[in-house]
Amino acid sequence: MNTQHQSLLDALNACVAACENCASACLQEDDVKMMAPCIALDRDCADICALTARLLSRGSEHAWHLLRECAEICRLCGEECAKHAHAHCQACAAACRRCEEACRQGMTA
Amino acid sequence: MNTQHQSLLDALNACVAACENCASACLQEDDVKMMAPCIALDRDCADICALTARLLSRGSEHAWHLLRECAEICRLCGEECAKHAHAHCQACAAACRRCEEACRQGMTA
Amino acid sequence: MNTQHQSLLDALNACVAACENCASACLQEDDVKMMAPCIALDRDCADICALTARLLSRGSEHAWHLLRECAEICRLCGEECAKHAHAHCQACAAACRRCEEACRQGMTA
Amino acid sequence: MNTQHQSLLDALNACVAACENCASACLQEDDVKMMAPCIALDRDCADICALTARLLSRGSEHAWHLLRECAEICRLCGEECAKHAHAHCQACAAACRRCEEACRQGMTA
Repeated sequence: MNTQHQSLLDALNACVAACENCASACLQEDDVKMMAPCIALDRDCADICALTARLLSRGSEHAWHLLRECAEICRLCGEECAKHAHAHCQACAAACRRCEEACRQGMTA
Repeated sequence: MNTQHQSLLDALNACVAACENCASACLQEDDVKMMAPCIALDRDCADICALTARLLSRGSEHAWHLLRECAEICRLCGEECAKHAHAHCQACAAACRRCEEACRQGMTA
Repeated sequence: MNTQHQSLLDALNACVAACENCASACLQEDDVKMMAPCIALDRDCADICALTARLLSRGSEHAWHLLRECAEICRLCGEECAKHAHAHCQACAAACRRCEEACRQGMTA
Repeated sequence: MNTQHQSLLDALNACVAACENCASACLQEDDVKMMAPCIALDRDCADICALTARLLSRGSEHAWHLLRECAEICRLCGEECAKHAHAHCQACAAACRRCEEACRQGMTA
Protein backbone atom coordinates (compact mmCIF):
# COMPACT_ATOMS: atom_id res chain seq x y z
CA MET A 1 0.00 0.00 0.00
CA ASN A 2 1.44 3.35 -1.02
CA THR A 3 1.76 6.38 1.25
CA GLN A 4 -1.44 8.04 0.12
CA HIS A 5 -3.48 4.88 0.59
CA GLN A 6 -1.99 4.37 4.05
CA SER A 7 -2.79 7.97 4.95
CA LEU A 8 -6.41 7.51 3.81
CA LEU A 9 -6.66 4.20 5.68
CA ASP A 10 -5.37 5.83 8.86
CA ALA A 11 -7.88 8.67 8.53
CA LEU A 12 -10.73 6.19 8.02
CA ASN A 13 -9.75 4.07 11.02
CA ALA A 14 -9.31 7.14 13.22
CA CYS A 15 -12.74 8.36 12.16
CA VAL A 16 -14.36 4.99 12.97
CA ALA A 17 -12.84 5.03 16.45
CA ALA A 18 -13.78 8.67 17.09
CA CYS A 19 -17.39 8.06 16.00
CA GLU A 20 -17.74 4.93 18.13
CA ASN A 21 -16.30 6.72 21.14
CA CYS A 22 -18.48 9.79 20.57
CA ALA A 23 -21.68 7.75 20.28
CA SER A 24 -20.98 5.93 23.55
CA ALA A 25 -20.01 9.13 25.36
CA CYS A 26 -23.08 10.96 24.04
CA LEU A 27 -25.29 8.20 25.47
CA GLN A 28 -23.88 8.96 28.90
CA GLU A 29 -24.38 12.73 28.75
CA ASP A 30 -27.16 14.37 30.75
CA ASP A 31 -28.47 16.06 27.63
CA VAL A 32 -28.70 12.83 25.66
CA LYS A 33 -31.86 13.96 23.85
CA MET A 34 -29.93 16.86 22.35
CA MET A 35 -27.22 14.40 21.29
CA ALA A 36 -29.57 12.02 19.45
CA PRO A 37 -28.76 13.36 15.95
CA CYS A 38 -25.06 13.13 16.78
CA ILE A 39 -25.40 9.50 17.89
CA ALA A 40 -27.35 8.59 14.75
CA LEU A 41 -24.73 10.15 12.46
CA ASP A 42 -21.88 8.58 14.45
CA ARG A 43 -23.34 5.12 13.80
CA ASP A 44 -23.69 5.62 10.06
CA CYS A 45 -20.34 7.36 9.72
CA ALA A 46 -18.49 4.62 11.62
CA ASP A 47 -20.06 1.89 9.50
CA ILE A 48 -19.46 3.56 6.15
CA CYS A 49 -15.86 4.49 7.00
CA ALA A 50 -15.20 0.97 8.30
CA LEU A 51 -16.41 -0.63 5.06
CA THR A 52 -14.38 1.79 2.98
CA ALA A 53 -11.29 0.96 5.05
CA ARG A 54 -11.86 -2.77 4.55
CA LEU A 55 -12.24 -2.45 0.78
CA LEU A 56 -9.21 -0.15 0.57
CA SER A 57 -7.08 -2.59 2.57
CA ARG A 58 -7.94 -5.40 0.20
CA GLY A 59 -7.16 -3.36 -2.87
CA SER A 60 -10.72 -3.38 -4.16
CA GLU A 61 -11.60 -0.83 -6.78
CA HIS A 62 -15.00 -0.59 -5.10
CA ALA A 63 -13.34 1.32 -2.26
CA TRP A 64 -13.04 4.26 -4.64
CA HIS A 65 -16.73 4.08 -5.53
CA LEU A 66 -17.56 4.64 -1.86
CA LEU A 67 -15.34 7.68 -1.32
CA ARG A 68 -17.97 10.22 -2.34
CA GLU A 69 -20.58 8.78 0.03
CA CYS A 70 -17.93 8.41 2.72
CA ALA A 71 -16.85 12.03 2.38
CA GLU A 72 -20.50 13.11 2.55
CA ILE A 73 -21.31 11.22 5.76
CA CYS A 74 -18.06 12.54 7.30
CA ARG A 75 -19.11 16.08 6.40
CA LEU A 76 -22.58 15.64 7.94
CA CYS A 77 -21.29 13.92 11.06
CA GLY A 78 -18.47 16.44 11.51
CA GLU A 79 -20.85 19.38 11.20
CA GLU A 80 -23.23 17.93 13.78
CA CYS A 81 -20.43 17.09 16.22
CA ALA A 82 -18.93 20.56 15.83
CA LYS A 83 -22.11 22.08 17.33
CA HIS A 84 -21.46 20.46 20.71
CA ALA A 85 -18.82 21.50 23.24
CA HIS A 86 -18.26 18.00 24.66
CA ALA A 87 -14.63 16.96 24.20
CA HIS A 88 -15.67 13.71 22.49
CA CYS A 89 -17.78 15.67 20.00
CA GLN A 90 -14.99 18.10 19.24
CA ALA A 91 -12.53 15.22 18.79
CA CYS A 92 -15.00 13.44 16.52
CA ALA A 93 -15.60 16.59 14.49
CA ALA A 94 -11.84 16.88 13.90
CA ALA A 95 -11.51 13.21 12.90
CA CYS A 96 -14.47 13.54 10.53
CA ARG A 97 -13.00 16.64 8.90
CA ARG A 98 -9.64 14.93 8.38
CA CYS A 99 -11.35 11.86 6.96
CA GLU A 100 -13.56 13.91 4.64
CA GLU A 101 -10.47 15.69 3.35
CA ALA A 102 -8.60 12.41 2.86
CA CYS A 103 -11.57 10.93 0.96
CA ARG A 104 -11.79 13.99 -1.29
CA GLN A 105 -8.06 13.77 -2.02
CA GLY A 106 -8.54 10.07 -2.83
CA MET A 107 -11.34 10.92 -5.27
CA THR A 108 -9.02 13.08 -7.35
CA ALA A 109 -6.03 10.72 -7.16
CA MET B 1 -26.50 -25.22 4.81
CA ASN B 2 -28.68 -27.63 6.77
CA THR B 3 -32.04 -26.77 8.32
CA GLN B 4 -30.68 -26.05 11.79
CA HIS B 5 -27.97 -23.76 10.45
CA GLN B 6 -30.50 -21.90 8.32
CA SER B 7 -32.77 -21.51 11.33
CA LEU B 8 -29.90 -20.10 13.41
CA LEU B 9 -28.89 -17.79 10.57
CA ASP B 10 -32.44 -16.48 10.25
CA ALA B 11 -32.61 -15.85 14.01
CA LEU B 12 -29.29 -13.97 13.91
CA ASN B 13 -30.32 -11.80 10.96
CA ALA B 14 -33.71 -11.07 12.51
CA CYS B 15 -31.99 -10.06 15.74
CA VAL B 16 -29.59 -7.73 13.93
CA ALA B 17 -32.48 -6.00 12.18
CA ALA B 18 -34.55 -5.73 15.36
CA CYS B 19 -31.62 -4.24 17.31
CA GLU B 20 -30.81 -1.72 14.59
CA ASN B 21 -34.44 -0.69 14.34
CA CYS B 22 -34.80 -0.48 18.14
CA ALA B 23 -31.69 1.69 18.54
CA SER B 24 -32.90 4.16 15.92
CA ALA B 25 -36.42 4.26 17.34
CA CYS B 26 -35.12 4.70 20.90
CA LEU B 27 -33.12 7.74 19.73
CA GLN B 28 -36.39 9.34 18.62
CA GLU B 29 -38.30 8.71 21.85
CA ASP B 30 -39.01 11.59 24.24
CA ASP B 31 -37.48 9.61 27.11
CA VAL B 32 -34.24 8.94 25.26
CA LYS B 33 -32.17 9.21 28.43
CA MET B 34 -34.07 6.27 29.90
CA MET B 35 -33.37 4.36 26.67
CA ALA B 36 -29.60 4.88 26.70
CA PRO B 37 -28.77 1.42 28.12
CA CYS B 38 -31.08 -0.14 25.54
CA ILE B 39 -29.37 1.73 22.69
CA ALA B 40 -25.91 0.70 23.93
CA LEU B 41 -26.88 -2.97 24.13
CA ASP B 42 -28.63 -2.84 20.75
CA ARG B 43 -25.38 -1.69 19.14
CA ASP B 44 -23.28 -4.46 20.67
CA CYS B 45 -25.92 -7.13 20.07
CA ALA B 46 -26.37 -6.18 16.42
CA ASP B 47 -22.61 -6.26 15.78
CA ILE B 48 -21.95 -9.56 17.56
CA CYS B 49 -24.94 -11.28 15.92
CA ALA B 50 -23.93 -9.91 12.52
CA LEU B 51 -20.40 -11.32 12.81
CA THR B 52 -21.72 -14.68 13.98
CA ALA B 53 -24.08 -14.77 11.00
CA ARG B 54 -21.22 -14.00 8.60
CA LEU B 55 -18.98 -16.73 10.01
CA LEU B 56 -21.85 -19.21 10.04
CA SER B 57 -22.70 -18.44 6.39
CA ARG B 58 -19.13 -19.13 5.37
CA GLY B 59 -18.97 -22.42 7.21
CA SER B 60 -16.30 -21.22 9.63
CA GLU B 61 -15.81 -23.27 12.76
CA HIS B 62 -15.15 -19.97 14.53
CA ALA B 63 -18.87 -19.21 14.31
CA TRP B 64 -19.40 -21.85 16.97
CA HIS B 65 -16.81 -20.25 19.24
CA LEU B 66 -18.89 -17.06 19.24
CA LEU B 67 -22.22 -18.67 20.12
CA ARG B 68 -21.75 -18.41 23.89
CA GLU B 69 -20.91 -14.71 23.73
CA CYS B 70 -23.68 -14.17 21.20
CA ALA B 71 -26.24 -15.88 23.43
CA GLU B 72 -25.04 -13.78 26.38
CA ILE B 73 -25.38 -10.42 24.61
CA CYS B 74 -28.81 -11.49 23.30
CA ARG B 75 -29.86 -12.31 26.86
CA LEU B 76 -28.67 -8.95 28.19
CA CYS B 77 -30.17 -6.96 25.33
CA GLY B 78 -33.45 -8.87 25.47
CA GLU B 79 -33.79 -8.32 29.23
CA GLU B 80 -33.18 -4.58 28.88
CA CYS B 81 -35.60 -4.23 25.96
CA ALA B 82 -38.26 -6.19 27.82
CA LYS B 83 -38.38 -3.44 30.49
CA HIS B 84 -39.75 -0.91 28.01
CA ALA B 85 -43.28 -0.79 26.62
CA HIS B 86 -42.31 0.72 23.27
CA ALA B 87 -43.34 -1.61 20.43
CA HIS B 88 -39.80 -1.56 19.00
CA CYS B 89 -38.40 -2.62 22.37
CA GLN B 90 -40.90 -5.44 22.75
CA ALA B 91 -40.20 -6.63 19.22
CA CYS B 92 -36.45 -6.48 19.87
CA ALA B 93 -36.84 -8.37 23.16
CA ALA B 94 -38.66 -11.14 21.31
CA ALA B 95 -36.03 -11.30 18.55
CA CYS B 96 -33.24 -11.40 21.14
CA ARG B 97 -34.93 -14.23 23.06
CA ARG B 98 -35.39 -16.27 19.87
CA CYS B 99 -31.78 -15.65 18.89
CA GLU B 100 -30.46 -16.53 22.35
CA GLU B 101 -32.41 -19.79 22.21
CA ALA B 102 -31.13 -20.57 18.70
CA CYS B 103 -27.53 -19.90 19.81
CA ARG B 104 -27.94 -22.18 22.83
CA GLN B 105 -29.34 -24.94 20.64
CA GLY B 106 -26.38 -24.47 18.29
CA MET B 107 -23.95 -24.81 21.22
CA THR B 108 -25.25 -28.28 22.02
CA ALA B 109 -25.57 -29.44 18.41
CA MET C 1 -40.54 -1.63 8.22
CA ASN C 2 -42.92 -1.82 5.29
CA THR C 3 -43.28 -4.77 2.93
CA GLN C 4 -40.96 -3.41 0.26
CA HIS C 5 -38.22 -2.62 2.77
CA GLN C 6 -38.53 -6.09 4.29
CA SER C 7 -38.32 -7.65 0.84
CA LEU C 8 -35.17 -5.66 0.05
CA LEU C 9 -33.67 -6.54 3.43
CA ASP C 10 -34.37 -10.24 2.85
CA ALA C 11 -32.74 -10.07 -0.59
CA LEU C 12 -29.67 -8.34 0.87
CA ASN C 13 -29.29 -10.87 3.69
CA ALA C 14 -29.76 -13.80 1.31
CA CYS C 15 -27.11 -12.33 -0.99
CA VAL C 16 -24.63 -11.91 1.87
CA ALA C 17 -25.10 -15.55 2.90
CA ALA C 18 -24.84 -16.84 -0.67
CA CYS C 19 -21.65 -14.85 -1.29
CA GLU C 20 -20.03 -16.02 1.95
CA ASN C 21 -20.95 -19.62 1.20
CA CYS C 22 -19.75 -19.35 -2.40
CA ALA C 23 -16.37 -17.88 -1.41
CA SER C 24 -15.73 -20.66 1.09
CA ALA C 25 -16.84 -23.38 -1.32
CA CYS C 26 -14.73 -21.89 -4.16
CA LEU C 27 -11.67 -22.08 -1.89
CA GLN C 28 -12.21 -25.83 -1.61
CA GLU C 29 -12.60 -26.49 -5.34
CA ASP C 30 -9.80 -28.17 -7.28
CA ASP C 31 -9.82 -25.34 -9.82
CA VAL C 32 -9.46 -22.64 -7.16
CA LYS C 33 -7.26 -20.52 -9.43
CA MET C 34 -10.11 -20.24 -11.93
CA MET C 35 -12.39 -19.24 -9.05
CA ALA C 36 -10.18 -16.39 -7.78
CA PRO C 37 -12.20 -13.59 -9.45
CA CYS C 38 -15.39 -15.14 -8.07
CA ILE C 39 -13.94 -15.22 -4.53
CA ALA C 40 -12.80 -11.61 -4.78
CA LEU C 41 -16.22 -10.42 -5.94
CA ASP C 42 -17.99 -12.54 -3.32
CA ARG C 43 -16.04 -10.74 -0.58
CA ASP C 44 -16.87 -7.25 -1.83
CA CYS C 45 -20.48 -8.11 -2.60
CA ALA C 46 -21.06 -9.64 0.85
CA ASP C 47 -19.58 -6.61 2.61
CA ILE C 48 -21.44 -3.99 0.58
CA CYS C 49 -24.77 -5.82 0.85
CA ALA C 50 -24.25 -6.32 4.59
CA LEU C 51 -23.66 -2.61 5.18
CA THR C 52 -26.68 -1.69 3.08
CA ALA C 53 -28.80 -4.13 5.09
CA ARG C 54 -27.60 -2.61 8.36
CA LEU C 55 -28.35 0.95 7.28
CA LEU C 56 -31.74 -0.08 5.89
CA SER C 57 -32.63 -1.84 9.16
CA ARG C 58 -31.87 1.27 11.13
CA GLY C 59 -33.92 3.50 8.87
CA SER C 60 -30.93 5.51 7.68
CA GLU C 61 -31.40 7.56 4.54
CA HIS C 62 -27.81 6.65 3.69
CA ALA C 63 -28.99 3.13 2.85
CA TRP C 64 -30.57 4.58 -0.26
CA HIS C 65 -27.33 6.28 -1.27
CA LEU C 66 -25.67 2.86 -1.36
CA LEU C 67 -28.28 1.13 -3.51
CA ARG C 68 -26.65 2.04 -6.83
CA GLU C 69 -23.23 0.73 -5.76
CA CYS C 70 -24.88 -2.29 -4.18
CA ALA C 71 -26.79 -3.11 -7.38
CA GLU C 72 -23.57 -2.72 -9.36
CA ILE C 73 -21.50 -5.11 -7.23
CA CYS C 74 -24.40 -7.60 -7.28
CA ARG C 75 -24.47 -7.41 -11.09
CA LEU C 76 -20.70 -7.97 -11.35
CA CYS C 77 -20.66 -10.78 -8.80
CA GLY C 78 -23.71 -12.45 -10.31
CA GLU C 79 -22.24 -12.36 -13.82
CA GLU C 80 -18.98 -13.90 -12.63
CA CYS C 81 -20.74 -16.62 -10.61
CA ALA C 82 -23.01 -17.44 -13.54
CA LYS C 83 -19.95 -18.52 -15.59
CA HIS C 84 -19.28 -21.46 -13.26
CA ALA C 85 -21.27 -24.69 -13.05
CA HIS C 86 -20.63 -25.29 -9.35
CA ALA C 87 -23.91 -25.42 -7.44
CA HIS C 88 -22.70 -22.77 -4.97
CA CYS C 89 -21.86 -20.43 -7.86
CA GLN C 90 -25.23 -20.91 -9.52
CA ALA C 91 -27.00 -20.33 -6.19
CA CYS C 92 -24.93 -17.20 -5.61
CA ALA C 93 -25.63 -15.93 -9.13
CA ALA C 94 -29.36 -16.29 -8.48
CA ALA C 95 -29.13 -14.51 -5.10
CA CYS C 96 -27.10 -11.69 -6.66
CA ARG C 97 -29.62 -11.24 -9.47
CA ARG C 98 -32.52 -11.09 -7.02
CA CYS C 99 -30.63 -8.61 -4.85
CA GLU C 100 -29.66 -6.44 -7.81
CA GLU C 101 -33.29 -6.33 -8.88
CA ALA C 102 -34.45 -5.48 -5.34
CA CYS C 103 -31.87 -2.66 -5.14
CA ARG C 104 -32.97 -1.26 -8.48
CA GLN C 105 -36.62 -1.32 -7.37
CA GLY C 106 -35.57 0.45 -4.17
CA MET C 107 -33.81 3.16 -6.19
CA THR C 108 -37.03 4.09 -7.96
CA ALA C 109 -39.26 3.81 -4.90
CA MET D 1 -8.84 5.93 25.57
CA ASN D 2 -5.73 5.15 27.58
CA THR D 3 -2.36 4.20 26.11
CA GLN D 4 -2.82 0.46 26.44
CA HIS D 5 -6.25 0.56 24.79
CA GLN D 6 -4.89 2.67 21.95
CA SER D 7 -2.01 0.25 21.48
CA LEU D 8 -4.43 -2.69 21.33
CA LEU D 9 -6.69 -0.82 18.93
CA ASP D 10 -3.73 -0.05 16.67
CA ALA D 11 -2.67 -3.70 16.68
CA LEU D 12 -6.21 -4.81 15.82
CA ASN D 13 -6.56 -2.33 12.96
CA ALA D 14 -3.12 -3.23 11.59
CA CYS D 15 -4.06 -6.91 11.71
CA VAL D 16 -7.33 -6.30 9.85
CA ALA D 17 -5.48 -4.44 7.10
CA ALA D 18 -2.72 -7.06 6.83
CA CYS D 19 -5.25 -9.90 6.62
CA GLU D 20 -7.32 -8.15 3.97
CA ASN D 21 -4.21 -7.37 1.93
CA CYS D 22 -2.88 -10.92 2.32
CA ALA D 23 -6.15 -12.52 1.21
CA SER D 24 -6.29 -10.39 -1.92
CA ALA D 25 -2.63 -10.97 -2.75
CA CYS D 26 -2.97 -14.74 -2.16
CA LEU D 27 -5.83 -14.81 -4.68
CA GLN D 28 -3.43 -13.45 -7.30
CA GLU D 29 -0.61 -15.92 -6.64
CA ASP D 30 0.07 -18.73 -9.11
CA ASP D 31 -0.13 -21.28 -6.30
CA VAL D 32 -3.50 -20.07 -5.12
CA LYS D 33 -4.63 -23.61 -4.24
CA MET D 34 -1.81 -23.84 -1.71
CA MET D 35 -2.91 -20.47 -0.30
CA ALA D 36 -6.55 -21.46 0.25
CA PRO D 37 -6.18 -22.14 4.01
CA CYS D 38 -4.38 -18.80 4.37
CA ILE D 39 -7.19 -16.96 2.57
CA ALA D 40 -9.85 -18.64 4.73
CA LEU D 41 -8.07 -17.71 7.96
CA ASP D 42 -7.40 -14.17 6.73
CA ARG D 43 -11.16 -13.65 6.26
CA ASP D 44 -12.08 -14.87 9.73
CA CYS D 45 -9.18 -13.07 11.41
CA ALA D 46 -9.99 -9.75 9.73
CA ASP D 47 -13.65 -9.97 10.72
CA ILE D 48 -13.05 -10.97 14.34
CA CYS D 49 -10.33 -8.33 14.85
CA ALA D 50 -12.53 -5.68 13.21
CA LEU D 51 -15.43 -6.40 15.56
CA THR D 52 -13.14 -6.38 18.58
CA ALA D 53 -11.73 -3.02 17.47
CA ARG D 54 -15.24 -1.58 17.11
CA LEU D 55 -16.32 -2.74 20.56
CA LEU D 56 -13.09 -1.52 22.11
CA SER D 57 -13.49 1.91 20.48
CA ARG D 58 -16.95 2.27 21.94
CA GLY D 59 -15.87 1.30 25.41
CA SER D 60 -17.96 -1.86 25.47
CA GLU D 61 -17.10 -4.43 28.09
CA HIS D 62 -17.95 -7.06 25.49
CA ALA D 63 -14.69 -6.22 23.70
CA TRP D 64 -12.89 -7.96 26.53
CA HIS D 65 -15.03 -11.06 26.15
CA LEU D 66 -13.79 -11.39 22.57
CA LEU D 67 -10.08 -11.09 23.33
CA ARG D 68 -9.53 -14.81 23.89
CA GLU D 69 -11.17 -15.78 20.61
CA CYS D 70 -9.40 -12.90 18.87
CA ALA D 71 -6.01 -14.02 20.18
CA GLU D 72 -6.78 -17.57 19.06
CA ILE D 73 -7.69 -16.66 15.48
CA CYS D 74 -4.61 -14.40 15.30
CA ARG D 75 -2.45 -17.32 16.42
CA LEU D 76 -3.94 -19.68 13.83
CA CYS D 77 -3.78 -17.14 11.02
CA GLY D 78 -0.24 -16.08 11.93
CA GLU D 79 0.99 -19.69 12.00
CA GLU D 80 -0.52 -20.40 8.58
CA CYS D 81 0.86 -17.20 7.05
CA ALA D 82 4.31 -17.88 8.50
CA LYS D 83 4.55 -21.04 6.37
CA HIS D 84 4.59 -19.04 3.13
CA ALA D 85 7.48 -16.97 1.80
CA HIS D 86 5.30 -14.39 0.03
CA ALA D 87 6.00 -10.92 1.42
CA HIS D 88 2.28 -10.34 2.11
CA CYS D 89 2.12 -13.58 4.11
CA GLN D 90 5.19 -12.69 6.15
CA ALA D 91 3.83 -9.21 6.82
CA CYS D 92 0.48 -10.70 7.84
CA ALA D 93 2.17 -13.24 10.11
CA ALA D 94 3.97 -10.41 11.89
CA ALA D 95 0.79 -8.35 12.27
CA CYS D 96 -1.09 -11.40 13.60
CA ARG D 97 1.64 -12.13 16.15
CA ARG D 98 1.64 -8.52 17.36
CA CYS D 99 -2.14 -8.55 17.61
CA GLU D 100 -2.22 -11.89 19.43
CA GLU D 101 0.29 -10.53 21.94
CA ALA D 102 -1.71 -7.30 22.39
CA CYS D 103 -4.91 -9.31 22.96
CA ARG D 104 -3.19 -11.52 25.55
CA GLN D 105 -1.87 -8.45 27.37
CA GLY D 106 -5.40 -7.02 27.31
CA MET D 107 -6.78 -10.23 28.84
CA THR D 108 -4.58 -9.84 31.89
CA ALA D 109 -5.05 -6.09 32.26
